This record gives sequence, structure tokens and C-alpha cells, in this order.
Amino acid sequence: MPLSGLRIIDLTRVISGPFCTMLLGDLGADVIKVEIPEGDALRTQGAGREGLSWYFASFNRNKRSITLDLKSPEGRARFEALVTSADALVENFRPGVLARLGYDEARLQELRPGLVTCAISGFGPDGPYRDRPAFDFIAQAMSGFMSVNGQRDDPPLRSGLPISDLVAGLYGALGVTAALLGRERTGRQERVDVSLTTSMVSLLAYVASHYFATGEVLPRSGNDHPISAPYGLFRARDGDIAIAPSDDTFFGRLMDALELGEHKSDPDFANNMLRVKHRTRLNALVSAKLAERDCDHWIALLNKAGVPCGPVYSVDGVFADPQMQSQNMAIDVEHPGHGTVRMLGFPIRLSQSPCRVRYPAPQLGEHNAEVFAEIGPTPLPT
Amino acid sequence: MPLSGLRIIDLTRVISGPFCTMLLGDLGADVIKVEIPEGDALRTQGAGREGLSWYFASFNRNKRSITLDLKSPEGRARFEALVTSADALVENFRPGVLARLGYDEARLQELRPGLVTCAISGFGPDGPYRDRPAFDFIAQAMSGFMSVNGQRDDPPLRSGLPISDLVAGLYGALGVTAALLGRERTGRQERVDVSLTTSMVSLLAYVASHYFATGEVLPRSGNDHPISAPYGLFRARDGDIAIAPSDDTFFGRLMDALELGEHKSDPDFANNMLRVKHRTRLNALVSAKLAERDCDHWIALLNKAGVPCGPVYSVDGVFADPQMQSQNMAIDVEHPGHGTVRMLGFPIRLSQSPCRVRYPAPQLGEHNAEVFAEIGPTPLPT
Repeated sequence: MPLSGLRIIDLTRVISGPFCTMLLGDLGADVIKVEIPEGDALRTQGAGREGLSWYFASFNRNKRSITLDLKSPEGRARFEALVTSADALVENFRPGVLARLGYDEARLQELRPGLVTCAISGFGPDGPYRDRPAFDFIAQAMSGFMSVNGQRDDPPLRSGLPISDLVAGLYGALGVTAALLGRERTGRQERVDVSLTTSMVSLLAYVASHYFATGEVLPRSGNDHPISAPYGLFRARDGDIAIAPSDDTFFGRLMDALELGEHKSDPDFANNMLRVKHRTRLNALVSAKLAERDCDHWIALLNKAGVPCGPVYSVDGVFADPQMQSQNMAIDVEHPGHGTVRMLGFPIRLSQSPCRVRYPAPQLGEHNAEVFAEIGPTPLPT
Repeated sequence: MPLSGLRIIDLTRVISGPFCTMLLGDLGADVIKVEIPEGDALRTQGAGREGLSWYFASFNRNKRSITLDLKSPEGRARFEALVTSADALVENFRPGVLARLGYDEARLQELRPGLVTCAISGFGPDGPYRDRPAFDFIAQAMSGFMSVNGQRDDPPLRSGLPISDLVAGLYGALGVTAALLGRERTGRQERVDVSLTTSMVSLLAYVASHYFATGEVLPRSGNDHPISAPYGLFRARDGDIAIAPSDDTFFGRLMDALELGEHKSDPDFANNMLRVKHRTRLNALVSAKLAERDCDHWIALLNKAGVPCGPVYSVDGVFADPQMQSQNMAIDVEHPGHGTVRMLGFPIRLSQSPCRVRYPAPQLGEHNAEVFAEIGPTPLPT
């Protein structure tokens, strides 16, 4: 696998860091999750069965777990021996915490020259807010993400997913992998910093470029596209359909497929700008037609006609869909003592050495003996 | 820089692919954007100044542009010469299009053994929907993302950002970088496939694990946290504040900071489960207090007390914030003939060889002569 033979020390907890190291483990890295003796708090959070959190299980596959008390001489000696064997170290403490434990960048490099280090924080490793506690919701609020999420006249809205944690974890995995590649080619070490807030800011896309170019703040626009029509959710007889015909060609196909072809020549709908202006009347025409039949009928028919459209799935619909099944987006993993645990599959498909679950999420300290044997006897400090 | 000396052929258009190759270029790769003679459609989209789309400029920094007609003998010869000089190729055509142009995986490997290839599609390279057109909005709808976005009694809601495009681009960049690292270490080639829908499904986090473990579909819950209170947006005198005290400690700090300490001992608020049950009364207490003063006052005071909180920024607020400024999340780039263009900064911070803008987004075909000279004379097919 692409990251086989690379050892990552994983000091992270909860979501953003564990997602980062899960991605690295899925790509083949030897991820050693170092937990405090009480274990990662996520072990007891989220829905589960028979004492196993399936949330934890999903974010911690392809890792081995050891427990270390970084405040005890024995724990520190073992940690230091582990560092000397590692290629990268990932942590999501608040900035400064690892240094206060005695492991600043200089000390880590002394233990293992060339070690790639990665810190995931709320706001970055410096700046006026560096010591503030980091929470996904706060990053969603402060990054501008919430301001463009929601209906125009409603308040700003967070995503139901911990999107800041996940995107920061993904940037962390990219940063670590790029740094390892650079080290392989040039021998140069890197420290990688990513934060929840800056990760989300980096996704502002046209909202940012529009603001920078014009000084205007685009309003929230719900499901309507600010500059395209027809576009949005339309109600069929038994549910909603997302339709996104982005130009005149797609608009023509939509109207023909709905047997509304005579309206293509309506001067009010002659181009996209006019369609946006007359959105209400156009949407009413489309909606009236769609209300006659069920979603399945329209989605098959519109796709056949080349109109971008699809159902709006809840989580049960996602995993019942034949395409998601063909892409193996739900996988079953044997957990000794806990039967089969279902979890999300792999978004990155590799042709030669596909991501796979080499081992299930570990029990707390499950690999103490194994990993301690690998790093050899550690002389206790006097 | 970590990816210096690696050449990426970029056949992508619009958002997801160009975001992927922008990330690779930001990390130092030599990205050659291959455009049809008419140019990437994004060149004429989004807000801009003096004929330059700032949206395009932002997504295409650190790339060189050449124009090639892959249907002409000359274009094909030049393309093939370029492939023999490359380390990776990224495309976001619909599945099968590049093969129909004569460049399937086998042909690309023949031209350049070991070439890492990456395809970004709507639904994946196979499965029943592989030929459907891919649009961000449809991926948001079909991935389950929209189903957990919005107020409980409102319809499912898309994000105002093209989040599927961006997350798929990010996974693509990770996949390419990992494959290049694997190739460097083992000599093994990889084809990387990512899709808009599966990328979004991979972010379902606790929504997926809850469903897998219990069979229950969690409802949309707007800004309320389904299992934590107080949590959400609260109205101060001049605006909203996001507050997320996640446990008893943070709750205690919040109540003390608001001079509501006497309610800490209220039996209705004794633990998180009870606070969720009595959320309405608790929120009313907090809101009444917050309404007395402005956001700035409360945010300073609550952060000092160690309560996770922050303002809800629109895009103008984001870039006026001293922390975002300290993290350089807006950067100014000189564009010859267009003055200074402001764009988003770099979410990945590297200590030794930081991401930087080596060159601004190219004019269409700006580097034809330069790149054609680099790849040398190309014998025209007879």
C-alpha cells in the first residue's frame, strides 16, 4: 500500500485527529494510537452495541492502541523510544500542551531527526486566539460557513455533520503525506499545522472571490442557486427531487423530458438571466408537472434525457442505493468479541493496492505488549 | 517544497479538479493545465474585474496553461510528449471520455510507465450511475449531506458552498500525493478514483454510525445539538453568538461567567441529559442575560472564562478578524495586466517550505511556447 512501512504516532483524540490518522492508516501506514490510561473519550460516545461505540470503531480502524502516561518516567521512556522509530507524529492538543509535556519541536527532532510532525488545532499555532478551546461548531460559525448555509430570512445554520473537524483532518492527512513525500525526495523535515477554522475558510470558494472582487457579501439563498434557474428541490408525488440544469442545453432537455417543450420558446425563459427573473412562474410549471408522478419515474426519465437530477436521500436511502452499494460505501468489519461492525467505506479508490481494513479499531492498550516488544527494552531514567 | 520536481498534467475543468491540482501546485508541483482552445469555462464565471474572473484566478494559481486540441494530430502528438514527461495526470471528464479520446489507462502507461492517474467523477468509475452528469448539488442531495442540514421541520438543505466539489478535490489531492509517495518508495503505479458522492458519504460520521448501530435515521436538528444543551446560537444585543459548552465543566463556567451561578444547583440542570430536557427554560435564561450586552463584550468575557464560543461571521467578518489575518487567510497576488488580485490563503502551513504563490493563474495558453520547448520537438504523426 502507498504508506506501507511508514510509522505514525497518533496522539489525537475525538474526531479531527483520529479522522486524519484513520485516512493515513487506510492508505497503509502503521498508525500507533497512544492513549491516556483512561482512553480516548470517543470510546464511550455515539451509538454502539455491547459496549462498543460504533462511532469510535469507525474512526479508529487500521490503528494499534497503546496506553502511556506521559507524566510518568516509564511512560516517557517508552514514548521516546517510540518516537525514535517513527516517521511522523500527529497531535490535536491545544497549542503548547505537547511542549509543556517536554516535547517541543526541538526535542522531537533530537529524538528522531527528520520526524514529520502535524498539529491540528482550533485556530492555528499562533495568533490572538491560539489558546482558545476548539470546537467544530465554533469553527463553523467563525469561518463564514454558517453564514451561507440556510434560508435567506432564517438565521445562519451549522451543518449537522462535524464538517470542520473532518475537513481539518483531511487537510492534515494531505499535509503529512506531502511532507513524507518531500522528505523521501529531499530529506527535508516539515512541521505541518492545520486548524479547524482556516480549513473551513479555505472552502469559501466563490463566496470569497465574489467578496474580494466586489466588496459584496452574498446572502444565504437556501436551495435556490443565486444565479441559475430552474435549480433546486422540486416536489414529485412522493418526495423531493434535486434538479440542476445549469445551462440552456440542460434547460431544453428538462422541458422536453417533462413534455413542457412549448415553453422553451416563451420569451420569459429565453436565457438563464430571464429564467432567474421569472423563477416563480417557471418553478410552478415544473412543479405542477412533477406532482403527477413519483420520484423514481422522474429521476429515471430525466437522467435518460441527460438532465442532472437525483433523489434527496436520508442516511437509509444512501446505503440502499445501488450506486453507493457498487462503490462499497458501507463495509462490514469483524470485531473480535463484538461480531460484525458496519462502517463507512473508502472514498479514495486505488487500483493496485486498494484501501482495506487490516485491523479493526483496537481495544484500549490492546497492543501494549506487541508494540513495547517492537521498540525494545527502554532504559528507565534514573 | 514537498512536491517540487513532480510534474502533474491537469486536464480538469471548473471546480473539483482545478481545486485538486491547485492544492498540488500550492505544495510545489509543476502543474500544467491543459485547456481546450476555448479555455476552461470557469474563466468567464464568477465575479471579477477588468475581464479577469477572480474565481478562476483563485482556483488556478500555481499552474501553467497550454492549449491543446486532443482531436488534432498536432495536439495529440504534443499531449503524448507531455505525458512521457509527467509524474501524474488528473482529469474530471465523465468516465470513459478520456479512453474514447484514445487515452485509456493502458495507453497512458505505455506512454509513461508508472504514471499516477487520478479521475474525479460524479459517482465513481463504474456502477449503474457512472455515466450520469455530475453536479455538486446532486451529490449533496444523494450523499445524505442535505438530509441532516436544516431545521427539523424545514426541507433538506444544500450548503451554499460547492462542498462536494471541494471535498472530492481534496480527496483527489490526498490520493495523488499518497500514490506518488508509494511510487517513490516501491515503484508501484496507482490509478486513483474519487467521486463527488462517495466523498460526501465518507463525511457522514456519527449520522452513519448511529444508523448502522441502531437502524435509526437521526432527524435534522438545525443549530441545536441533538444531545447537548445549552448549545447553539444565542442572541446578544447586536448579533448572534455561537456557544458550545460540551460538558458539566463548561456549563459551570458559562453560568458563572454570566452571573447565573445560582442556577448551577437547579436540579433541572444537574446534568447534560436534564439540561437537554429543560433546554427551553435554560436557553431563555441564557438569552435574557446575553441580550443585555453586545457580542464583543460576551465573547471576550466567555473566552476568558474558558467557554467555547465565537461570533457568527459573514465573509466580511471573517477577513476582518485578527486571527484570520494572523493566519494569512487572504493573500494578494500580482496579476500582470490586472493589478492585485486577492484570494484565499493556504490552509496547510509548512514550517520549512511554506506554500506560496509561485505564479498567478495563467492566461489561456500563456505557457504554450515555454512548455512546448521543454518537451522538445514532437514528430507529427504521418
